[in-house]
Amino acid sequence: MRPPRVHQVRSGTDYPIIETPPISAHHTWEARMLARKLLWIVPALIALPLQAQDLQLAELGECALESGEVLAPCDLGYRTYGELNAARDNAILISTWFGGNSAAWTGILGSGLIDLGGFYTIVVDAFGNGVSTSPTTSSTQGGEAFPLVSIGDMVHSQYRLVTDVLELDGLYAVMGISMGGMQTFQWLVEYPDFFGKAVSIIGSPRLGPYDIARWETELRVLELFEDCECEEAAAVYSGLSMLTLNSPEYHARVTDRTTVQASLAQQARQSVQSLSEGRTKNIATQLRAMINLDISRGHGGDMAAAAAAIQAELLVIVDAVDHLVTPGPALEFAELAGAQSVILDDDCGHLSAFQGCSGTVMTEAISAFLARDD
Amino acid sequence: MRPPRVHQVRSGTDYPIIETPPISAHHTWEARMLARKLLWIVPALIALPLQAQDLQLAELGECALESGEVLAPCDLGYRTYGELNAARDNAILISTWFGGNSAAWTGILGSGLIDLGGFYTIVVDAFGNGVSTSPTTSSTQGGEAFPLVSIGDMVHSQYRLVTDVLELDGLYAVMGISMGGMQTFQWLVEYPDFFGKAVSIIGSPRLGPYDIARWETELRVLELFEDCECEEAAAVYSGLSMLTLNSPEYHARVTDRTTVQASLAQQARQSVQSLSEGRTKNIATQLRAMINLDISRGHGGDMAAAAAAIQAELLVIVDAVDHLVTPGPALEFAELAGAQSVILDDDCGHLSAFQGCSGTVMTEAISAFLARDD
Repeated sequence: MRPPRVHQVRSGTDYPIIETPPISAHHTWEARMLARKLLWIVPALIALPLQAQDLQLAELGECALESGEVLAPCDLGYRTYGELNAARDNAILISTWFGGNSAAWTGILGSGLIDLGGFYTIVVDAFGNGVSTSPTTSSTQGGEAFPLVSIGDMVHSQYRLVTDVLELDGLYAVMGISMGGMQTFQWLVEYPDFFGKAVSIIGSPRLGPYDIARWETELRVLELFEDCECEEAAAVYSGLSMLTLNSPEYHARVTDRTTVQASLAQQARQSVQSLSEGRTKNIATQLRAMINLDISRGHGGDMAAAAAAIQAELLVIVDAVDHLVTPGPALEFAELAGAQSVILDDDCGHLSAFQGCSGTVMTEAISAFLARDD
Repeated sequence: MRPPRVHQVRSGTDYPIIETPPISAHHTWEARMLARKLLWIVPALIALPLQAQDLQLAELGECALESGEVLAPCDLGYRTYGELNAARDNAILISTWFGGNSAAWTGILGSGLIDLGGFYTIVVDAFGNGVSTSPTTSSTQGGEAFPLVSIGDMVHSQYRLVTDVLELDGLYAVMGISMGGMQTFQWLVEYPDFFGKAVSIIGSPRLGPYDIARWETELRVLELFEDCECEEAAAVYSGLSMLTLNSPEYHARVTDRTTVQASLAQQARQSVQSLSEGRTKNIATQLRAMINLDISRGHGGDMAAAAAAIQAELLVIVDAVDHLVTPGPALEFAELAGAQSVILDDDCGHLSAFQGCSGTVMTEAISAFLARDD
């Protein structure tokens, strides 16, 4: 296997990876909602002392997958923020959410919504997000030929990045939001002694039945869009997002019933863009990874055994009425592991902490949890 | 206008209307779920002294619609149970739910889930349900040519049935489940002095934003199915039902995560049947009627004014976590009208009372409410 190589990818170069659609046109409503939130955050970053925000690309050569297939080439996009200390023990690894990328995390970190000041933060783009190796980027395994990747595969690649490329012997913490939180759970069982703390934010160790039904339905919507490339399919994609990203109670309180139809139609037109040019395959790649997730698989499906095997301190943050990643499995795991859990107790749903609902609760819980004991 | 005519439609005749698919193959999951519930109920009916359960058909000739168009022919299917008393003041009118029909109501009445013993009950099939005039039944306005009908149009036709065909001067009560409950709300403002009591079960006077998003998304799914006649579109139709008929908490408690995908695939195959042969147009007819519902329209959109104008006693039954017909609008109307409301406080959602969750609460509330004061 070739030694990994790292590209520095600067803004303004013609490197194709940074020519993926801007975050505001990204392929999920989740990303778009975050983007709206971030519109006012990003300008504030100019004054922030974050270093090396530019996208870098690690070429890992080949990545063996859990399916038995091999992903090659296997490239990982990532960005780092802050500085590694002399003891090399202040690194935090962050995995991206479904449809998200490391660029979007710049906004979250810069806003202070999650304050990692004093840490050396590494945000890694997950396979299938259009930055790291994806159906839309692979020169050898693009589109239909892209293999099935798992959350475990994502985590294995991140471990190689951290150890082989960044040459770290351990991490202070791992963390992620949504599918990023799922990767956090996977990290806990894959590399239990490699880090001391873990934070899963609206993530899950294994999807509940409702989540599976939701994502499985979305897979069918993607297939329909591939067949028709039509606005009706994009409308269903947007509609499904609206119905599950926030709770019905949130919509009853916040959404104007007289504008719902026009709003859905507008979102549908945007989604046509987001789903076209083969991006359905990127989305489906990550959907399948989530659907197949089960961190207890290595323990014969016994979640209690998986929980007993973890070593890191764990903070689990969920929203009480999250209908995209239902909170039950994460809370049950926290209980099994004797971990700390924080329930964002509002009517907002999945995006609670990112829509001004319970952001402060999340911010404070994470800061307190990550504070160094020394 | 011709005087209305009534057909007696006996089981076993070759009258096409009763050759619509049996309830177990009907076109919504709602209907299928009820059908499962009813499987054990219907045999019990053999011993019950219900009279004239056979489908009858009233030919109303022409029905002027709120859109300005005319529905012609305009036929209403209905079934009656029990006997009209000598004073002719014990009649209860029931409107059918979305995708439901009067046959399905036989099971509910026979089961005692809603006990209308001692009353003369008239269950009327709503336009678009495949029994009363529908895109699939109209010889002159079938399919695409079917005009836009409203919940008001449904109620107007029912009033003509009651007054012109059944020659009643008033009703003891009106009642309905889901879209039937929406018709009940419409009855309250259309014919305020024609009946003394009204029961809306999981209905609404005007859909909330979440509901509109849900049904609007379903309209797009129907369009996709019409274009492809494919299992993917049917799968999205089934998936959307699963995601909204019960709450995520219900699925977390009841549904086996390992069988979700197979179950969705099976439902998709059934839905292909349910959606084919032009039945998407029937479903869309009723969907649009629900989306456009606003019983305050005659009061300039002022729901308080609408509530002030009603005369009947009103019982509103909702489920706390109903994600198909969100409970807010019905509860707000009940408060405005000083009406009695019952919240089924469980995790089941729309089908709560019909899945053994809060059926007893509903049964008792309705019996107490409908009890004659004399």
